[in-house]
Amino acid sequence: MKTVGFAAYDPKKPLAPYEFERRALRPNDVAMEILFCGVCHSDLHTARNDWGWSYYPIVPGHEIVGRVTAVGPQVNRYKVGDHVAVGCLVDSCQECDQCQKGEEQLCREGMTGTYGGHDRITKAPNQGGYSKHLIVREEFCLSMPAGLDLSKAAPLLCAGITTWSPLKTWNVGVGSRVGVIGLGGLGHMAVKLAVGLGADVTVVSRSAAKEADALALGASRLLVSADEEAMAQAANHFDLIIDTVPVKHDITPYLALLDVDATLVLVGQVGPMNEFNTVPMLMGRRRVAGSPIGGIKETQEMLDFCAEKNILPDCEMIRMDEINEAFERMENADVRYRFVIDMATLPAGATA
Amino acid sequence: MKTVGFAAYDPKKPLAPYEFERRALRPNDVAMEILFCGVCHSDLHTARNDWGWSYYPIVPGHEIVGRVTAVGPQVNRYKVGDHVAVGCLVDSCQECDQCQKGEEQLCREGMTGTYGGHDRITKAPNQGGYSKHLIVREEFCLSMPAGLDLSKAAPLLCAGITTWSPLKTWNVGVGSRVGVIGLGGLGHMAVKLAVGLGADVTVVSRSAAKEADALALGASRLLVSADEEAMAQAANHFDLIIDTVPVKHDITPYLALLDVDATLVLVGQVGPMNEFNTVPMLMGRRRVAGSPIGGIKETQEMLDFCAEKNILPDCEMIRMDEINEAFERMENADVRYRFVIDMATLPAGATA
Repeated sequence: MKTVGFAAYDPKKPLAPYEFERRALRPNDVAMEILFCGVCHSDLHTARNDWGWSYYPIVPGHEIVGRVTAVGPQVNRYKVGDHVAVGCLVDSCQECDQCQKGEEQLCREGMTGTYGGHDRITKAPNQGGYSKHLIVREEFCLSMPAGLDLSKAAPLLCAGITTWSPLKTWNVGVGSRVGVIGLGGLGHMAVKLAVGLGADVTVVSRSAAKEADALALGASRLLVSADEEAMAQAANHFDLIIDTVPVKHDITPYLALLDVDATLVLVGQVGPMNEFNTVPMLMGRRRVAGSPIGGIKETQEMLDFCAEKNILPDCEMIRMDEINEAFERMENADVRYRFVIDMATLPAGATA
Repeated sequence: MKTVGFAAYDPKKPLAPYEFERRALRPNDVAMEILFCGVCHSDLHTARNDWGWSYYPIVPGHEIVGRVTAVGPQVNRYKVGDHVAVGCLVDSCQECDQCQKGEEQLCREGMTGTYGGHDRITKAPNQGGYSKHLIVREEFCLSMPAGLDLSKAAPLLCAGITTWSPLKTWNVGVGSRVGVIGLGGLGHMAVKLAVGLGADVTVVSRSAAKEADALALGASRLLVSADEEAMAQAANHFDLIIDTVPVKHDITPYLALLDVDATLVLVGQVGPMNEFNTVPMLMGRRRVAGSPIGGIKETQEMLDFCAEKNILPDCEMIRMDEINEAFERMENADVRYRFVIDMATLPAGATA
């Protein structure tokens, strides 16, 4: 089918309208009209080829909320009119140990990205959610629970699951002491989700400027990382720290904040990190880990949890043609906390 | 009581004979004549004040095997003539959660080092095992199981437990795939202990030069880290990697060798590490941890295990007055794999 969207045509040019073909419906496919799409840092990195694997034109967007318009004959779980969602992955081998465990994001053959990946059958490059329509196999389609505000839910599909997954992997629950470094798209979701799980949450930030924001999101306090005395007093305090900082940095000062056997999970920076010192790791058997998005089952559980607890990202709605300005503002951390594109605003001239 | 040993008097001078006082026997103390003492890299670092906390004179040595010469009236577990051992720690608060769990090395008040630490009652600086006698409270005295060769067992008290503890913490057992980076005092014990636990062990080394040694120690193979093709083929292979390299280095190439959710444990380098890249951590939810020695209960279990399996370090016996030469050779990695001092060789002129 023909559809329209906004694509990067080149690493250095602004995104612009793009008409392209979506694949024909396969027997196990769900077709949807996209209603809302969140704007993730990965979209920007991909548009600019920061990670070296972009193709052009490329349509970003992997925080997708839509409404089913058609289903293939083998589809059981969805029907026309259902509200559905798609996140960062649209396929995997489905057979390896990781897929069998519901950890498709860790598929032994490599997960297939919503954009940046290639269709496992045709090898055609996938195109993401800054578009009017999407076709996805049923297994990678999520159900939007009733009661979740569709206009705000999109960022759950990446920012939400990326912070939810480590909270679950490291067993955060009532009374867990959770630290969140950085208060952007990922960080603000980490705070909301950890608070939702009953944790005592501390935002760790370079200055006290974000204290009111942190408290408003549900955190119990803000710890100023530039305040050496406060940092020393917080030593051994955390069961888990989620580090959402998306640039190269030094984890050493944060390691001593971990309790014995506790873990700092990197979810923000994709690439090089500063030198670090082993002493706080050795002295408390402390750990550092990375964590990538989450599996489909876990993502559905997160959506259901958010509906039950009424947890939603703080969003700023934009028009599709405001995307380039939004990228610029995102780079300057000038968003609280996530842009969401209203896909009804796709320019009339670019309608399929 | 008066005793003698070899001490560093200054960060830059060779170790030399030293007469000093051991504390009077307390009701819960065990007094021993030291028979053998292993030579650990930490001894050298401490003699030279590399970590900034040395006092002088300081008697190094925390891989101690001895024979009981006296016990205080409250001592139940040991009697005169018993073969005993002391490792890296001689006291802790005994009341915190970590001590209660038998993890005295992670005591909330800080463990008390065999040397480098201070007596918890008198605050006097502790002196280590390069000496004729030692007095230690019963709770930190280990029992040498019958059948363990006393002349070779000393390095188990630091090199042994430092590698045993992560093997147990990360549940290594029959069939576990264990990598060991570096084949020195710690590395060769990591291989022997992991093999003893039934693991399939790979030594990771910069060149193939140590292949025969690795196989002789029980490893199944040697992986050459400079061989990019071999490294790529070994991706996702390990359940646990024990990194014994005692200098600043880059862990990034090793991270991709870990399976999903697997851990690289740093036990060698105390201090700065190179920059690293988060991608292999994010992509496989891989982890990096530090691990310090082990607790008393765990150390006793390791000694008993080594006696049962007849696992002993490969040692080169030296005389006490050869210690400075041994330090030099250790710095040049010219030892297979651990020096042990025969304490009967303390120079006659320095006898108490």
